[in-house]
Amino acid sequence: MTYSDSAEPSPPASPPSQPSPSPASRPKVARGGKRERLAAAAAQVLHEQGVEKTTIADIARAADVPLGNVYYYFKTKDQLVEAAIDAHAQHLAGLISALDALPTPQDRLKALLAGWIDQRELTARHGCPTGSLASELDKRDDGLDQTLATVMRVLLDWAEQQFRALGRTSDARELAVALIASYQGISLLTNTFRDPEMMATEGRRLERWIDSLADQGLSVG
Amino acid sequence: MTYSDSAEPSPPASPPSQPSPSPASRPKVARGGKRERLAAAAAQVLHEQGVEKTTIADIARAADVPLGNVYYYFKTKDQLVEAAIDAHAQHLAGLISALDALPTPQDRLKALLAGWIDQRELTARHGCPTGSLASELDKRDDGLDQTLATVMRVLLDWAEQQFRALGRTSDARELAVALIASYQGISLLTNTFRDPEMMATEGRRLERWIDSLADQGLSVG
Repeated sequence: MTYSDSAEPSPPASPPSQPSPSPASRPKVARGGKRERLAAAAAQVLHEQGVEKTTIADIARAADVPLGNVYYYFKTKDQLVEAAIDAHAQHLAGLISALDALPTPQDRLKALLAGWIDQRELTARHGCPTGSLASELDKRDDGLDQTLATVMRVLLDWAEQQFRALGRTSDARELAVALIASYQGISLLTNTFRDPEMMATEGRRLERWIDSLADQGLSVG
Repeated sequence: MTYSDSAEPSPPASPPSQPSPSPASRPKVARGGKRERLAAAAAQVLHEQGVEKTTIADIARAADVPLGNVYYYFKTKDQLVEAAIDAHAQHLAGLISALDALPTPQDRLKALLAGWIDQRELTARHGCPTGSLASELDKRDDGLDQTLATVMRVLLDWAEQQFRALGRTSDARELAVALIASYQGISLLTNTFRDPEMMATEGRRLERWIDSLADQGLSVG
């Protein structure tokens, strides 16, 4: 569940009417309405810095929105965290929609893996955006952990459908949990050891696993 | 890499000379020297509350050590985090020593899994102690993320040895990474969904996986 620059549909971006006036230390998030820009910036900055270290001013700066304007849309950091979770949910919906255009469940699951592998450098720097957020929200008492769980459940449900379509009717849920757990865990290790190749190697192993499940499905069907 | 109450060797505990004078909201950590008690309490409280929300006073209370005494051993919270990482390292050394007493690599890996499954209720509440700490330390700039990586590398190296002993000479490292990633990931999902049964189901799947690798090793050897 990372933001891929390549294989996924991007939101329609209106070109900037003039060169960006204020260079900053991180790339600016995609253009759009101020609310959407703030939500996308919140997702990005929370991924880079974590919930505890992030201020509303950090998010305003990344979104290129004057700090005074932010309070018109979001009164508290919790509301910005919620907006970031919503941005993750929308990104995931776009990703699933793109994957569903592929012909077979095997193609779809392997394209999901390919997206994860593509993002291995970012994962080595900051971990999985939703996974590291889930870990942080667990230690807070704002109730947002369960909002994020709802988003992660969408990915689990989708993966379960794919395994079911591969012919794994009795253990589709278990295989979906195993796949998402492997991704979450390898994200954590890739980040802990700052080693993007860990993600690449594990991704290839999971590709072979999906191929072998698909072959079994063919031999059964 | 969780603290099991059952299958692992406990450090020698000197019995308290009198009943504990101050009841607190969480169980007190094992007796011992004040420094060791503070380190064990730091590991426990950081697991429950996370690094950001934990104060030195919280750790002093859990260790049943007067706050004024803590500063004799630890000047800063960073030093207490480092002591907690050291407590994790010592716990892991004890666990590995207990596992190494088992006759076969298959037994050893399955006993590691059994310990993880035993701890599923605690994992559902707070995640993996070292995994959630790794995720938090990534967002901090105290350099302690690399200290924790050193501890996690010990477990990876040990698991690699076991797969090698199972006859997997060419991909032992890859399988070790896959096993630890699966554990880290299922800990995160178990915690996110507050569902201990996720850990139990994935643990049983990993047990079957280890059995199948061992069977392959036998048929090759």
